[in-house]
Amino acid sequence: MPLRQTLDFLLYDWLHAQQLTGRPRFADHSRETFDAVLDTCERIAREKYAPHNRTLDIEEPRFDGEKVILPACSKEAYDAFAASGMLSAAQDYAIGGMQLPYTVESAAHTFFAMASVSMGSGMLTVGNANLLMVHGTELQKQVFALNEFSGRWSGTMCLSEPQAGSSLSDIVTRAVPDGEGFENDPLGPRYRLTGNKMWISAGEHELTENIIHLVLAKIPGPDGKIIPGTKGISLFIVPKKLVDADGRLTGARNDVALAGLNHKLGWRGTTNTLLNFGEGKFKVDGRAGAVGYLVGRPHEGLRCMFHMMNEARIGVGMAAVMLGMAGYAASLEYAKNRPQGRPVGPAGKDPSRPQVRIIEHADIKRMLLAQKSYCEGALALALYCARLVDEQHTGEPDVANEARLLLEVLTPIAKSWPSEWCLEANSLAIQIHGGYGYTRDFPVEQYWRDNRLNMIHEGTHGIQAADLLGRKVRMEGGQGLELLAGRMRATMARAGSRADLAAYATALGEALTQVADATKAAWSTGDPAEALANAVPYMQAFGHTVIAWIWLDVALSVPANSNDPAHEGRLRAARYFFHYELPKIGAWLQVAASRDPTCADMPEEAF
Amino acid sequence: MPLRQTLDFLLYDWLHAQQLTGRPRFADHSRETFDAVLDTCERIAREKYAPHNRTLDIEEPRFDGEKVILPACSKEAYDAFAASGMLSAAQDYAIGGMQLPYTVESAAHTFFAMASVSMGSGMLTVGNANLLMVHGTELQKQVFALNEFSGRWSGTMCLSEPQAGSSLSDIVTRAVPDGEGFENDPLGPRYRLTGNKMWISAGEHELTENIIHLVLAKIPGPDGKIIPGTKGISLFIVPKKLVDADGRLTGARNDVALAGLNHKLGWRGTTNTLLNFGEGKFKVDGRAGAVGYLVGRPHEGLRCMFHMMNEARIGVGMAAVMLGMAGYAASLEYAKNRPQGRPVGPAGKDPSRPQVRIIEHADIKRMLLAQKSYCEGALALALYCARLVDEQHTGEPDVANEARLLLEVLTPIAKSWPSEWCLEANSLAIQIHGGYGYTRDFPVEQYWRDNRLNMIHEGTHGIQAADLLGRKVRMEGGQGLELLAGRMRATMARAGSRADLAAYATALGEALTQVADATKAAWSTGDPAEALANAVPYMQAFGHTVIAWIWLDVALSVPANSNDPAHEGRLRAARYFFHYELPKIGAWLQVAASRDPTCADMPEEAF
Repeated sequence: MPLRQTLDFLLYDWLHAQQLTGRPRFADHSRETFDAVLDTCERIAREKYAPHNRTLDIEEPRFDGEKVILPACSKEAYDAFAASGMLSAAQDYAIGGMQLPYTVESAAHTFFAMASVSMGSGMLTVGNANLLMVHGTELQKQVFALNEFSGRWSGTMCLSEPQAGSSLSDIVTRAVPDGEGFENDPLGPRYRLTGNKMWISAGEHELTENIIHLVLAKIPGPDGKIIPGTKGISLFIVPKKLVDADGRLTGARNDVALAGLNHKLGWRGTTNTLLNFGEGKFKVDGRAGAVGYLVGRPHEGLRCMFHMMNEARIGVGMAAVMLGMAGYAASLEYAKNRPQGRPVGPAGKDPSRPQVRIIEHADIKRMLLAQKSYCEGALALALYCARLVDEQHTGEPDVANEARLLLEVLTPIAKSWPSEWCLEANSLAIQIHGGYGYTRDFPVEQYWRDNRLNMIHEGTHGIQAADLLGRKVRMEGGQGLELLAGRMRATMARAGSRADLAAYATALGEALTQVADATKAAWSTGDPAEALANAVPYMQAFGHTVIAWIWLDVALSVPANSNDPAHEGRLRAARYFFHYELPKIGAWLQVAASRDPTCADMPEEAF
Repeated sequence: MPLRQTLDFLLYDWLHAQQLTGRPRFADHSRETFDAVLDTCERIAREKYAPHNRTLDIEEPRFDGEKVILPACSKEAYDAFAASGMLSAAQDYAIGGMQLPYTVESAAHTFFAMASVSMGSGMLTVGNANLLMVHGTELQKQVFALNEFSGRWSGTMCLSEPQAGSSLSDIVTRAVPDGEGFENDPLGPRYRLTGNKMWISAGEHELTENIIHLVLAKIPGPDGKIIPGTKGISLFIVPKKLVDADGRLTGARNDVALAGLNHKLGWRGTTNTLLNFGEGKFKVDGRAGAVGYLVGRPHEGLRCMFHMMNEARIGVGMAAVMLGMAGYAASLEYAKNRPQGRPVGPAGKDPSRPQVRIIEHADIKRMLLAQKSYCEGALALALYCARLVDEQHTGEPDVANEARLLLEVLTPIAKSWPSEWCLEANSLAIQIHGGYGYTRDFPVEQYWRDNRLNMIHEGTHGIQAADLLGRKVRMEGGQGLELLAGRMRATMARAGSRADLAAYATALGEALTQVADATKAAWSTGDPAEALANAVPYMQAFGHTVIAWIWLDVALSVPANSNDPAHEGRLRAARYFFHYELPKIGAWLQVAASRDPTCADMPEEAF
């Protein structure tokens, strides 16, 4: 099934995205304008991204001592993407945007992620600029955000440090006021930053004229000491090249230097860097220290940054989905064309008959159907989340608040589930190719390597799970979980009256009860260490339950008695998920519900 | 836990390998001689293999038009390995062997696989020579096998062809008698071979003076046509360089030419080749056609080759295990040393306290314990199978026959289970490293890539599953399965009387019943297409049940009330497996038992 056909069904037949045009913000839009955006992105991805995916893997970024060299195709793809206007698709008309619903924007981005995930499609730049649109001053928006939306400059987020990985309370990058009058700089209170930032994606390259780093750092107190913990963290704009209040380059470099490129297992089209801020390599006004402009108020940096990180989590989930879809498409194509072996049973025992194509073997079909159910199910979830973002931003207050709460609960799933199961899909795509899948002559091994990143960045699996069970299912009195359960029950009620789906409604109801019971049981002693000891298995079960629900809901949008094979395919994928996958949750929930201490109590010396 | 300590426990405390010295074949051996072999292999692996594992990955084999170039460390490692005598460790004293039990030989090989799996430790060479010792003539043994055991020459197995992958009945390599008197060549009936062989590991290199290919080919009938199917397949010795009856190189090349190197995702230290036989690049006596000497009788080639393939399957399983162990060791080391974050709960909320090492987090412990339970459990199974090989070869007739049947049933598990779950272990090892695990600065990403091969070569997962459910559990009236069940019941009976293990005995009993029931249910209609439609999930459940049994049996060898942390670790790993893993079998068995047609019936156009 071509991606476009799947998107059309999910967007219009299932999520009714066309109804969004009834809202004032999207009133100028129509299905035609939505389709035009999808057409454009599909074309750019086909022409500028897909042909170069292997090139990015082979011609890894390298530093020549002055510049980071990327293959020429990177620049061409970036320019075509920026020229499409997609960087500012969601923005107001007033600043050159399209006022496109996030649902459609997300769908449009799938083409790029599937064609070449590490070529990048500006996720960090858009997230960076979006943050500034919310938390920046008017001039910060004008100078920094708008130049990012136009594609002239790109953006990063600089959180991690070598000694502090995911533990942001332990960052030690310092920001001190930049001399007298530091508060009066038109671009914002001016500081000098010193410290090292690790794992910075797109931290150095020549794709754009400038790079706008958003940097977390601590402002020391009067005693010169930094405040321990996350409370002391502030947020700064640190441009690679200094700019004036009109957005012109001053000609001077800021004191931000590349300390090293990470050499990665995959996702090689995007540079990943260690950056030194303020080590004195590029002195500004004769002094070491990277110039940074405060965003928002001091000590509120983390709150601002979390805004960006939530978007990033959904984006990572979607990237994982699309890598899965790429592997599914490649292995489906291979299976349809590769002759090998004969059917099981008497007919297959006659070697004088020609070999059959491997798609005729049951186990190959199993591996294809598993991929379809993982990837299309996860794609549906990702688009559902995107639809919630639109509800949150443009719905009536009650609906918007519900959407916000649902997103809180679903975000860790939208990030973690595809990163685990669409990676598994990529492994199945390799398996279908047999030995060929293990060679670099076919694309599937690269998808698998690229996808392995997604369980790590923007918060590891363990961090997502702690967020889900430790915070999201309990926040605001457990309202988010209750809302989600309500949505599931509504789906079950509709499915209960359809003969072909009623059994799945029952199964989903049982799964939901098990998840709810496990949530209570995990927290029954009130001890976070006990509750969270098995947070990952809990999240795995939660995710499987969510995807089962999504599939049941998608199946309800398939007309009964349709002859369309695409519809048959969706019903089959749903059936696969209910028969083969949902029953797995028992094993995961059992350890969460019993607060099983087998792992947590393991003595270190016994490993 | 250092590998040696684990091996010592499994070999001596669990499998009682020292009892083998009571048998005539091993009468000169003692625990001391066994230990000396382990010491030697451990040292060579540490000195010649481990330091170069990344080099092999970076300096992939390349063909300069004449020779295949490998990094220098490959030759040094090969020479050290050959000098150790391990290639002929299992052989008779009379031909220079050590008469070492296979159990100890297998244990000794683990050091090499863990240090650098793709450096190779002669598995194919030994398998090749072993086959000739069984099926070859006296002179074939003398000239070919002995020169392989000495390390002077190396060996390959050439089965697959580009158009025939795993479907051996479709090979088209032809072998025709090499002129008059072809039957009288002292090295065996002489043929000329023509055809292309794909996926040939170690098919070309300069590590040894010569390479002895064992090649499957078809001898045409009087009408010049080859017989369809596997029945027409014969086996030939095809040396890369021609040799005389005294084993001297004649100075002439045989007509075997490298057509290409495969560029692989991992396992790069071993060349993988496409070989052209008889294309005329190296004419022999002025004519194209690779000279090959028939092994055994015409048309019985596959039977001979299967001998080698069974050994190879157990070897692949062991390789997967040891890659898993390598990742476990690396991630344990990392987790013990990397400070990051603070404990869950009130104490962790004070950012002025120092960060803890990540091994103190429950989720990291979970990922370590999962690796331990997968890898040490699979290592135990592999050694158990090796012990069965010794029983088969040196036990009393009844015991030997039982061992043979048990091996038939366990071989697909010993191959498939580690290739799936020790790969998962490698993914967990990456996860523990966080972003660092995704870089090539740490070894774990390479282990994961290397290990992905093991679900593919020597018969894919799908082929192992069809072998298990289609043949092994039913052969000889289901005796193999019944024998295995008997061994499991014996373990349960012993465990039933130990307070700490009785519950696991009960759980294992239930699992065994489920597996037995599913086996019957899958075959209840007698239709192979229905029975085998879900053979892979069946095999997954079967494998988990086997590993649960192995862990319970291992746990029984742990003395009660021991203070040794290694013993505590084994009991914990067993507990992990029973709590977290064994409950997964229900979901897998359900589809096998119900002969679920969801996948098999999927219409192609619905994908």
